[in-house]
Amino acid sequence: MKKLKIGVIGMGRLGYEHACNIANRVPQAELTAICDADLKRAESAAEELGVTAVYTNPKELCSDPEVEAVAIVTDTSSHVEMIGYAMDAGKHVFCEKPLAENVEKCLAAEKIAEAHPELIFMLGFMRRYDHSYQIAKRKIEDGEIGDIILVRSYSQDPISIIEGTLQFAPRSGGQFIDMSIHDIDLIRWLTESEPRNLWAIGGCYEFKQYKEWDDGDNAACMMQCENDTMAFLFAGRAAAHGSHVETEIVGTRGTLRISSVPADSMVEVMNSHGVCHECYQDFISRWHNAYVAEMEEFCACVRENRKASPTVYDGTKNTRIAFQCKESFLNNRMLTL
Amino acid sequence: MKKLKIGVIGMGRLGYEHACNIANRVPQAELTAICDADLKRAESAAEELGVTAVYTNPKELCSDPEVEAVAIVTDTSSHVEMIGYAMDAGKHVFCEKPLAENVEKCLAAEKIAEAHPELIFMLGFMRRYDHSYQIAKRKIEDGEIGDIILVRSYSQDPISIIEGTLQFAPRSGGQFIDMSIHDIDLIRWLTESEPRNLWAIGGCYEFKQYKEWDDGDNAACMMQCENDTMAFLFAGRAAAHGSHVETEIVGTRGTLRISSVPADSMVEVMNSHGVCHECYQDFISRWHNAYVAEMEEFCACVRENRKASPTVYDGTKNTRIAFQCKESFLNNRMLTL
Amino acid sequence: MKKLKIGVIGMGRLGYEHACNIANRVPQAELTAICDADLKRAESAAEELGVTAVYTNPKELCSDPEVEAVAIVTDTSSHVEMIGYAMDAGKHVFCEKPLAENVEKCLAAEKIAEAHPELIFMLGFMRRYDHSYQIAKRKIEDGEIGDIILVRSYSQDPISIIEGTLQFAPRSGGQFIDMSIHDIDLIRWLTESEPRNLWAIGGCYEFKQYKEWDDGDNAACMMQCENDTMAFLFAGRAAAHGSHVETEIVGTRGTLRISSVPADSMVEVMNSHGVCHECYQDFISRWHNAYVAEMEEFCACVRENRKASPTVYDGTKNTRIAFQCKESFLNNRMLTL
Amino acid sequence: MKKLKIGVIGMGRLGYEHACNIANRVPQAELTAICDADLKRAESAAEELGVTAVYTNPKELCSDPEVEAVAIVTDTSSHVEMIGYAMDAGKHVFCEKPLAENVEKCLAAEKIAEAHPELIFMLGFMRRYDHSYQIAKRKIEDGEIGDIILVRSYSQDPISIIEGTLQFAPRSGGQFIDMSIHDIDLIRWLTESEPRNLWAIGGCYEFKQYKEWDDGDNAACMMQCENDTMAFLFAGRAAAHGSHVETEIVGTRGTLRISSVPADSMVEVMNSHGVCHECYQDFISRWHNAYVAEMEEFCACVRENRKASPTVYDGTKNTRIAFQCKESFLNNRMLTL
Repeated sequence: MKKLKIGVIGMGRLGYEHACNIANRVPQAELTAICDADLKRAESAAEELGVTAVYTNPKELCSDPEVEAVAIVTDTSSHVEMIGYAMDAGKHVFCEKPLAENVEKCLAAEKIAEAHPELIFMLGFMRRYDHSYQIAKRKIEDGEIGDIILVRSYSQDPISIIEGTLQFAPRSGGQFIDMSIHDIDLIRWLTESEPRNLWAIGGCYEFKQYKEWDDGDNAACMMQCENDTMAFLFAGRAAAHGSHVETEIVGTRGTLRISSVPADSMVEVMNSHGVCHECYQDFISRWHNAYVAEMEEFCACVRENRKASPTVYDGTKNTRIAFQCKESFLNNRMLTL
Repeated sequence: MKKLKIGVIGMGRLGYEHACNIANRVPQAELTAICDADLKRAESAAEELGVTAVYTNPKELCSDPEVEAVAIVTDTSSHVEMIGYAMDAGKHVFCEKPLAENVEKCLAAEKIAEAHPELIFMLGFMRRYDHSYQIAKRKIEDGEIGDIILVRSYSQDPISIIEGTLQFAPRSGGQFIDMSIHDIDLIRWLTESEPRNLWAIGGCYEFKQYKEWDDGDNAACMMQCENDTMAFLFAGRAAAHGSHVETEIVGTRGTLRISSVPADSMVEVMNSHGVCHECYQDFISRWHNAYVAEMEEFCACVRENRKASPTVYDGTKNTRIAFQCKESFLNNRMLTL
Repeated sequence: MKKLKIGVIGMGRLGYEHACNIANRVPQAELTAICDADLKRAESAAEELGVTAVYTNPKELCSDPEVEAVAIVTDTSSHVEMIGYAMDAGKHVFCEKPLAENVEKCLAAEKIAEAHPELIFMLGFMRRYDHSYQIAKRKIEDGEIGDIILVRSYSQDPISIIEGTLQFAPRSGGQFIDMSIHDIDLIRWLTESEPRNLWAIGGCYEFKQYKEWDDGDNAACMMQCENDTMAFLFAGRAAAHGSHVETEIVGTRGTLRISSVPADSMVEVMNSHGVCHECYQDFISRWHNAYVAEMEEFCACVRENRKASPTVYDGTKNTRIAFQCKESFLNNRMLTL
Repeated sequence: MKKLKIGVIGMGRLGYEHACNIANRVPQAELTAICDADLKRAESAAEELGVTAVYTNPKELCSDPEVEAVAIVTDTSSHVEMIGYAMDAGKHVFCEKPLAENVEKCLAAEKIAEAHPELIFMLGFMRRYDHSYQIAKRKIEDGEIGDIILVRSYSQDPISIIEGTLQFAPRSGGQFIDMSIHDIDLIRWLTESEPRNLWAIGGCYEFKQYKEWDDGDNAACMMQCENDTMAFLFAGRAAAHGSHVETEIVGTRGTLRISSVPADSMVEVMNSHGVCHECYQDFISRWHNAYVAEMEEFCACVRENRKASPTVYDGTKNTRIAFQCKESFLNNRMLTL
């Protein structure tokens, strides 16, 4: 089997994760080039991962003839520009979430992708590719829980990483755009429907500085979908126990819960605190296998020349809904979409 | 210790449960009289429980000089009338939830109670007295989870009892008034705040007949409280696994979950379905000990002449909010209270 | 229904529990008399529980004509003597475990019971009457797990009560006789077979003083039963997390586990230790309902004049096996019984 | 980083797993050659994994100058011969468990390894490298549970794979040698002690044919270690719920349990059976990451020229103890070692 030659743009924490996976964990892929504005960082990763093509200019990586596909893991604000470079150079594109920092740019990305129908485009909402979420989705499709009544989806970051969270917060777009967008994607994917009405609320329960950024440290949103399914999402930045992403799907024939206890191993500890499951403390450990699986799927889509999912349109829809959540939150009013 | 002599009005399923508890499980109480419109039913319970005073007319039970306190477990629509009979006859009153079928009657009940400040009045929202809810409340009061961010509360009935549910449905008042009122009470009790805004939704996912009663078989509501805590409640009538009441309290220092698995025993069954916890199939088994505990508290309040909780005002507030949920659901609009 | 009039001998911690249950929680029973060598303790309990017949001499309680049945909750060494007093006076007997402190006395108890076939005798191994154990037993009888392969049974006391444990240890008979005898009873009850071979081991892992009493602070025993089922029991005195009694029954069609997490409520606590279930810290809380249920069964047996279980012979067998465990432990040799 | 060039001998189910891991999941390794007596099978795997060197003769693979290390995943009976070929050819060796089918051959393997002190030898007891077992081991080393009192270790195969199990059974060596040897290895690794006394029992509870092979379908063994820790192991072939390997370590300060529920994902299914965790149905899914991790460790040992663990001596000791279990089982007697 010929391996897909992928270049990765962006060597931040998540870009490095993708690069390692492409180099070492995704059988169908080969890491061919690395790009980062910080040359030292790019070189260090390249050396570790056995890559010789190192760039600081993304355009150059995109025009490297050895590169067949590009994984974009840069700052959100540059995603669409990178997508343009890559697709215009004839490369397949895997782009990390979110697609862009506003809906206009998302629409521009749609245009680029539509201009290159022969190229594969895939957006990186990795939760869909997590083993447990895949099992849940299959059970739903197999009718095991009947029709969906309610989807509840939580994204909680551990308080242990709050320092970094606060530093990034001013330019993160806020809880809905940075965090709940994952839950929005899951809700749309699981219900196969779009929200029709929503109301978002939240507040500064622990970290008052979020107020300055027109945001809360914890936020929630209830949605009513076009097919009448209900949804509730919650985003938190101060979970004492760990990184807790949980999704529940209540159906007319049964209910599925994914990760109601975000245990980081199969170890139970019995001590003076009781019987305890220790929890994930960072999202990369939690989703490591999902990051590998989504990249495997990207390679398979290229190889088999089939549409990848999430699509560029998912990117636009997720972003638009996240902004509507924010609007609802800021005005404290229910929105009809 | 002198036992409190209690007469019970209403020998339906829950009235019988209370009568048995008063007769046999509540050390501080003595079952002194029984009243039911159906004489046979009253006599049969009286014989079993060793009671000689049997009535079909509630007024007579209330004027029985042997009776010191009255437990009202009749149809909701007669609650306030019964409260009047009992208190006017100088009896302490324990009244099952809900206080009344509309807010006007609740206000009338308030008047009655206020006219008898020397008498104890207690409303029967038993969940507050469940061992696990008591532990959770104490942990919150002790500051173990910091400030409350979100309360999520579910009430799901098992599909196994749907026949009876459907029969009662037309005169139940609907999901919010019949079922979610428990979650409304818990949210108010746990947050010590009142909802400021709410939006309720729902639908007929399995049992289309609820449409005829301006109701859904499943419903949800998101609330924003005056102290900024958030709340989400969900009511369902078709849970495949059992009677599932669950409450989660997310705080700034920790999270508590009560009954995320509504296991009916400490047995795990490992078989071809996996590792399974079988679940409660009816609410009386689930809440048996809570029914005993609330009656013990009622007796203690009488003995010690202290205010009982939930109060008559909780009854009014819970009812008003439940109706606001229903209004929001029917108009599909967010309500500012 | 006529209530069974019971006198309780022994007002220690467990005697008081039984007296309270008889007085207040067991509908079919009435607490009629109390006896304790310590008059003040007897009087205080009698006053609290509304009993007028108070004794310091057990013989006098046994000859009280108002008393129909006697619950013996005294020191083990006096059990058989008390059984004699009670049965010779024509009273039914409920006797706490263990039956006696050696096999000879157990055989004497058998003689007494046999001399009074018209009287009901029941031994107090309460675990059999715990809700979860009852469910497990029923599932086994219903064939849900096929034939039994292995029973594993643990009895662990929390380290939080070690002071009291150590004080009682010199006259407790040791882990097998004091503690594992419960597991021995469960194994015999669940497998419906008797051990054929056994080997017991143990040691002083934390509390070296057990060495002086020819005992260990932790001990274990493997058994092979006559019907070829296997059994493993473990007894510990230093559990960090709480009072942990757990039993597993592995069958050819499924496995049952009882209390693999000895949670004291349905609350999950999510904090810096992870997701934790807090555990029972004392055995009376854990077994409260079982103590009530066994007393209800005792009353039912008297009322219906049917044999009660566990029998006096269970008492002898459990004691004999416990002594054989101790012998095996002391000689560190497998025993063929 | 230079990759270690590994040749794999044996393309059975597990050999293929190792080959895939070496080719695609172990960053530090490169799959260089494949050998299987069945040429077609070898060629098919080689083509899929991009390997050009294909052999049917293990000796030839071992003398391939491109090969730096050999992974032996053949029938147990040929392990030692293969070790000889490989080490005599100057190759590092990773050998699957068990080391050999009898103790004599194990001693021969020790000799070979000792004759090549410059080469790395590692035995494949993968459970030690499972994430959860690694966490447990670290907690023990960090003193979190104090001193070890008891290790309980279960190995249960699902009844769903019984056909294959029965076919392999006559030449498997029996439950202790084929299956419990894993638990023996864990007990030795966790306690850092060797058994001093043991007694093994078992029987044919479901599959009577095991009798013909002097074996049982379920078996157990209790051990007393030289450092006084206790151990209990259980092996079963008919678990209704799945592939269930579980280990508990009871210590003087706390207890650890690994995989008390062998859930194959983070999904809870709530349906008419209750709240269920579905379980692993095959050992390769369960241990996939452990197989990768042990191979990573093997590569690291070669690279850093340090001793690998488990050692060849662990292989001998585990095998000797497994045979002693079998001897004890056959004679039904406790053995002092």
